[in-house]
Amino acid sequence: MGAVGSGLDAGPDPEDSDRPNASTEEAQSSREFLVPQFMDVHTSMAGVTHDQLRAAHQADLDIQDEEGVNFTHAWADPKSGHVFCLSEAPNAEAVRKIHARTGHPADEVHEITVTA
Amino acid sequence: MGAVGSGLDAGPDPEDSDRPNASTEEAQSSREFLVPQFMDVHTSMAGVTHDQLRAAHQADLDIQDEEGVNFTHAWADPKSGHVFCLSEAPNAEAVRKIHARTGHPADEVHEITVTA
Repeated sequence: MGAVGSGLDAGPDPEDSDRPNASTEEAQSSREFLVPQFMDVHTSMAGVTHDQLRAAHQADLDIQDEEGVNFTHAWADPKSGHVFCLSEAPNAEAVRKIHARTGHPADEVHEITVTA
Repeated sequence: MGAVGSGLDAGPDPEDSDRPNASTEEAQSSREFLVPQFMDVHTSMAGVTHDQLRAAHQADLDIQDEEGVNFTHAWADPKSGHVFCLSEAPNAEAVRKIHARTGHPADEVHEITVTA
């Protein structure tokens, strides 16, 4: 476990590239790095119902191929209005485009490069 | 699909209870509702490495049983410093307690009652 992490630590400055190099060891232990992963956040969806979240998610799924995005999960807290969407995508802009086109633009898009 | 959602919509005001009643249909379609689920967010972990995230996550796992929490995933964006942790727990306070005790208090804890 330590060897995998230290391999990354010794790699190029993460600021110099969009994501870390995926060595064989990393690919085996963290398959997420084979495709960039993103967590986007919506903060103004208070009161969202099951039907509304499913409809919004389906609208994304219907057009996601046009930007090479694959939305895999959506988690909502209707009380706070926060919705978290996990996706695989070529870049953050692709995620933003799909959400914007379906009428629910993301407030934040974070590239996930470390998981546990 | 519509029938599952509309059943929830016609249910009690979500403000009146911590989570929706789990009917048989909902339990079948969304097993998450069998145990309350939470997404917590840390916003000040810029530069977090694989080793650091794994160590922090392991520290949570080591004591999570004491509060009945089960942390299932952690996703980090070292550039923005955001870390998202998904868990099953009896309530948000239990999640906050574990993260606080292991030295990385959560900035937000959201109860997830709707998924897609």
